[in-house]
Amino acid sequence: MQLEFLGTGAGSPSKQRNVTSVALRLLEELNEVWLFDAGEATQHQILRTTIRPRKISKIFITHLHGDHIFGLPGLLSSRSFQGGNEPLTIYGPVGIKRFVLTALQVSESRLSYPLHFVEIDHDQVLFDQNGFKVTTMHLDHKIACYGYRIEEADHPGELLVDKLKADHVPSGPLYGQLKAGKTVTLPDGRTIDGHDYIGHPQPGRIVAIMGDTRKTKNAIILAQNADVLVHESTFAKNEAQMARSYYHSTSQQAAEVAKAAHVKRLLLTHISARYTGKAAYQLAYQVRDILPNTRVVNDFDVIDIPFNK
Amino acid sequence: MQLEFLGTGAGSPSKQRNVTSVALRLLEELNEVWLFDAGEATQHQILRTTIRPRKISKIFITHLHGDHIFGLPGLLSSRSFQGGNEPLTIYGPVGIKRFVLTALQVSESRLSYPLHFVEIDHDQVLFDQNGFKVTTMHLDHKIACYGYRIEEADHPGELLVDKLKADHVPSGPLYGQLKAGKTVTLPDGRTIDGHDYIGHPQPGRIVAIMGDTRKTKNAIILAQNADVLVHESTFAKNEAQMARSYYHSTSQQAAEVAKAAHVKRLLLTHISARYTGKAAYQLAYQVRDILPNTRVVNDFDVIDIPFNK
Ligand SMILES: [Zn+2]
Ligand SMILES: [Zn+2]
Repeated sequence: MQLEFLGTGAGSPSKQRNVTSVALRLLEELNEVWLFDAGEATQHQILRTTIRPRKISKIFITHLHGDHIFGLPGLLSSRSFQGGNEPLTIYGPVGIKRFVLTALQVSESRLSYPLHFVEIDHDQVLFDQNGFKVTTMHLDHKIACYGYRIEEADHPGELLVDKLKADHVPSGPLYGQLKAGKTVTLPDGRTIDGHDYIGHPQPGRIVAIMGDTRKTKNAIILAQNADVLVHESTFAKNEAQMARSYYHSTSQQAAEVAKAAHVKRLLLTHISARYTGKAAYQLAYQVRDILPNTRVVNDFDVIDIPFNK
Repeated sequence: MQLEFLGTGAGSPSKQRNVTSVALRLLEELNEVWLFDAGEATQHQILRTTIRPRKISKIFITHLHGDHIFGLPGLLSSRSFQGGNEPLTIYGPVGIKRFVLTALQVSESRLSYPLHFVEIDHDQVLFDQNGFKVTTMHLDHKIACYGYRIEEADHPGELLVDKLKADHVPSGPLYGQLKAGKTVTLPDGRTIDGHDYIGHPQPGRIVAIMGDTRKTKNAIILAQNADVLVHESTFAKNEAQMARSYYHSTSQQAAEVAKAAHVKRLLLTHISARYTGKAAYQLAYQVRDILPNTRVVNDFDVIDIPFNK
């Protein structure tokens, strides 16, 4: 499980940062990639990564501003052109379907795969399947905007093979029953309980990805105990008033959300073109007293999300 | 007057070529830039040039395939974001207005400038003003596709100041009357005719820009005596059958059009990603026996279009 940032800028593309898109790589877990937002030229950014468009099975849109959706029609067309056959589902605020279908209709693009839409107009659990639960809640932006919480199911404990060997339990189909937590009788007459031979379950990982927003309570709820929170930081620590009038957040507000939610790691994105080079990194340095594990991400950064030891 | 190629690829973007867009720089003539097609990430390409989006006053769309229009919404939004106030007109096949307005509405983008549309459904002179006449005719593609002929008006001859001095004609307001072709009486009593002191008029330049098309008679009409013809060459010389079934042209067909139209220079674009490096240049070499002055253009190529001596 990794996050790969395809665009980390705000509003318009710059030479340093493309407009917003981030991929959640679930290749080991599901052999899938999920995209969050798709600003213009997201497909161009993908060309420079190892991501294959046909592996993208779900696209979650936070809100309908152009810097978050104008890359969708091109990406969907190229996924088809490159022979993608697997279905793709787009989740996003009401209006996303009209935008995408109009673009595909006008351009007479016929896709080689089924395209589904789930339009969002209230807070809800979007699905809980294949070991992943995704919840969405509204945020506080100028137009309807949603954040997403992705929760991996706990992984059951591993079978303690070394302990079984030490106790001279012969290997075979028996191991499967023990792993399932059953009590079995061995050929030598002993009766043993599978629970004694299963390690601790591994807690699933939690990723929270916000859209453009003012500091808001729902972000804290979505990010509760997350391994990683991706939060916008369009403005610097001392620009709270500007942030408020433009419906955005400062780096400090993002860090406060992360701290209140007991987040392990905060990634700041949606960086204004006014902040380049060192000035951009300052956005994170300024708030490390609030949350030490904070950084500003750049286009093409890959952030690994390991299991908790 | 220059052509600046912003995207020279076919269908999908590649690392080498972006999808189609070409700018006609009329900065000296009109202080304007005209764009022909705007595939996705055209605004990103523009970032790497000296073109300012607010100088773009007209955008001509050849057809509605995604690789020719998906960059429009982002470009229009950024032009606004960057403080463009001057009106902008989009010319293109019926449907272009619906596509653009839906994208702007759904994303709640409000533009800082008036946006006009001229939807095209038949061959016509689009306008003849400020020294430029633009004619459009339909081509032969899978969907409605139009080519454009841009004709600069002839420049009147220059006043021959050296000759006036040699003939001891005193400078002053008189020069203006002579330049206008009037007959004037000098202070010393001589009567002279302005026509004797005006050089040859300079013929205006002609640029013809085609969209995706099979070889077609209208391209020859639009390109008649053009200084430069921009023609697609999605396929190589020996792939006429493929070109026909996909409604495209081979390099040979493009050269035949150029030759029949007595074009001075042929620029091949809309190059398939199957042709990279030397293979792409071969598209031009293969047809130089038909039209010697032929080349394949690349992204960011700037082609000057000088006056004819
Ligand atoms: Zn944004
Ligand atoms: Zn095309």
